[in-house]
Amino acid sequence: MDYAKESLRLHGEWKGKIEVVATVPAGNKEELSLAYTPGVAQPCLAIQEDPDKSYELTRRHNLVAVITDGSAVLGLGDIGPEAGMPVMEGKCVLFKRFADVDAFPLCVKTKDVDEFVQTVYNISGSFGGINLEDIAAPRCFEIERRLKEMCDIPVFHDDQHGTAIIALAGLTNALKVVGKKKEEVRVVFSGAGSAAISITKLLLEAGFKDITLCDKFGALYDGNPDMNWAQQEIAKRTNLEKRKGTLADMLVGADVFIGVSAPKLVTTEMVKTMNKDAIVFACANPTPEIFPEDAKAGGAKVVSTGRSDYPNQINNVLAFPGIFRGALDVRASDINEEMKMAAAMALASIIPDEELNENNIIPAAFDKRVVPAVAKAVAEAARKTGVARL
Amino acid sequence: MDYAKESLRLHGEWKGKIEVVATVPAGNKEELSLAYTPGVAQPCLAIQEDPDKSYELTRRHNLVAVITDGSAVLGLGDIGPEAGMPVMEGKCVLFKRFADVDAFPLCVKTKDVDEFVQTVYNISGSFGGINLEDIAAPRCFEIERRLKEMCDIPVFHDDQHGTAIIALAGLTNALKVVGKKKEEVRVVFSGAGSAAISITKLLLEAGFKDITLCDKFGALYDGNPDMNWAQQEIAKRTNLEKRKGTLADMLVGADVFIGVSAPKLVTTEMVKTMNKDAIVFACANPTPEIFPEDAKAGGAKVVSTGRSDYPNQINNVLAFPGIFRGALDVRASDINEEMKMAAAMALASIIPDEELNENNIIPAAFDKRVVPAVAKAVAEAARKTGVARL
Repeated sequence: MDYAKESLRLHGEWKGKIEVVATVPAGNKEELSLAYTPGVAQPCLAIQEDPDKSYELTRRHNLVAVITDGSAVLGLGDIGPEAGMPVMEGKCVLFKRFADVDAFPLCVKTKDVDEFVQTVYNISGSFGGINLEDIAAPRCFEIERRLKEMCDIPVFHDDQHGTAIIALAGLTNALKVVGKKKEEVRVVFSGAGSAAISITKLLLEAGFKDITLCDKFGALYDGNPDMNWAQQEIAKRTNLEKRKGTLADMLVGADVFIGVSAPKLVTTEMVKTMNKDAIVFACANPTPEIFPEDAKAGGAKVVSTGRSDYPNQINNVLAFPGIFRGALDVRASDINEEMKMAAAMALASIIPDEELNENNIIPAAFDKRVVPAVAKAVAEAARKTGVARL
Repeated sequence: MDYAKESLRLHGEWKGKIEVVATVPAGNKEELSLAYTPGVAQPCLAIQEDPDKSYELTRRHNLVAVITDGSAVLGLGDIGPEAGMPVMEGKCVLFKRFADVDAFPLCVKTKDVDEFVQTVYNISGSFGGINLEDIAAPRCFEIERRLKEMCDIPVFHDDQHGTAIIALAGLTNALKVVGKKKEEVRVVFSGAGSAAISITKLLLEAGFKDITLCDKFGALYDGNPDMNWAQQEIAKRTNLEKRKGTLADMLVGADVFIGVSAPKLVTTEMVKTMNKDAIVFACANPTPEIFPEDAKAGGAKVVSTGRSDYPNQINNVLAFPGIFRGALDVRASDINEEMKMAAAMALASIIPDEELNENNIIPAAFDKRVVPAVAKAVAEAARKTGVARL
């Protein structure tokens, strides 16, 4: 199927993928007097007295905002807020279909960090959580950091952490398949944006030692003059040998390739230079850094992409629905590192060792065990770390 | 029934009155590939090329934001953004139940005009219209004016214009019942906030001549030192005799009382001083300026309140659903004066002259003729005035 053409046709037919519906009656005077005026004054006063009651008397307890500035939508780059909306609506569909989370899409018309932060903070009292989406690096880091400080609800930049959680889960299982150890493998990234930096942080936290990030200028290393502040930070903890060169140079002898960059940056020839039983995660969307058949032709043993039409899909739908489900279930005030790590480990352990193989390292997007397992692990970690309010 | 108590109980049971649902399937890889990645890239690119396509490919065409800062909620005053949410959700229920408009509630955490305006503008690209709600005067005037200038979608402060449209419709019919003429009656307001000023403007436009507004300091008159800028403006066009005194003073000899202020400010004794066949519109919510039985005891002929448990309810639900339905149907870029006047006249003419009586001057909230009639009139006025884009 030509997904592009068919999707465009369907979007024109659907005219939107979400709907805001009323769940209470308003069909006669009495119903109106209870759902609206005069009766509604009473729940208002109850919340005025105790703002936490907003979780009990309004939809806030199950409501997440999906917010973008349209600056890094899919692999399409900065296409503007309105043009990001089909993706945001799609995300909301997944929140609802996978985890019964009500999600509402908002595209914010500013690229100014202060203004974006203030806008999102100003509406945060209407939601139980905020899912940031498709915001370009490095401003996504500052936006998330500041919003996490300001808001008393979870703020989660899915492109960073969702991808990181699934990548760690998948990599944990892929290493089992090829019989290598996380402490010993050499990991090379294509991409040095939000996803790459966030995956790197989680991998380091999980015990990986040898990681190198490459962007279009080549390998990041401490002192490289072409880096933004976020890259400077991560460069201090990666590529400790300070190797310089292109992505192709770095891939020679690498065990793991993780692409979170742009289409078709990796060739079969490049994969051939990697170590035996190479692991290739080519996550660029919708066109990966290298297609699975080409990676396999280069000798890769385990290949993942972000696409739903190949095996081992690194699909954020494995993480964010369960993560927010768990966070909302315990009215968490934050989604912290412990909750993310718990989600990754829960996700990896869904596939028992005896079922692991090169085409089965990550649960399928539609595996019914995923959301409950992730939600449970996240809720438990929230309780353990004191951010649960229920 | 004790609406307050029962409403609080029900809100605790409902846990929210709206839900965001998915309208497209995402139950297998193919469906995911169409609603989300990779297919979704194509509608994104189509909107990037032509932002107007956002009306055809996303839910925007039917989506209205219901936005407050919580500063003037019902008659409760400034109870804060979270506490305003039950009203906003209720409003969204009415939008959906009455006119199939998807409405989403947002409570903005700032009282700063610049910041509020910027916040609402920044998210306006996600909606087809903006319904401002329960924002205190005089800042509501500036907020609405600036947002109308900045946004290319309709911005409508319902507390001003919704109430004005229905008051004009009701008053038009009430005058028929008592056999008086709009050019000849003396109208006195209790309240000099957003609703009072907005009703006054629409009445003047419709041909009323003698209007006096009173706030807690007494009658507004040109030169009164206790007025804000919005009151100074309207004082130049009202109380042309520059009478000074209390609300009680002004009511002596008045034909029409319109209360958009606070509970119980008017007594039976005060109504007795009004002209024969007085018209009393006591719209404070949930407790009116005077209850209908007390107004009737003072000799009032026609009495309206904002309550759904008395006849002649001045309920905004008669206006905003049909107004936004009409505006969205023609993708209007604005809701202008002509559209408001058209809505009022459409509303008044729903009740044929032979059916008019003191207890039937305004269609009931559940009259099925209301929304289609208002929507049609509004859409036609939008086309005539060149703000329709469909």
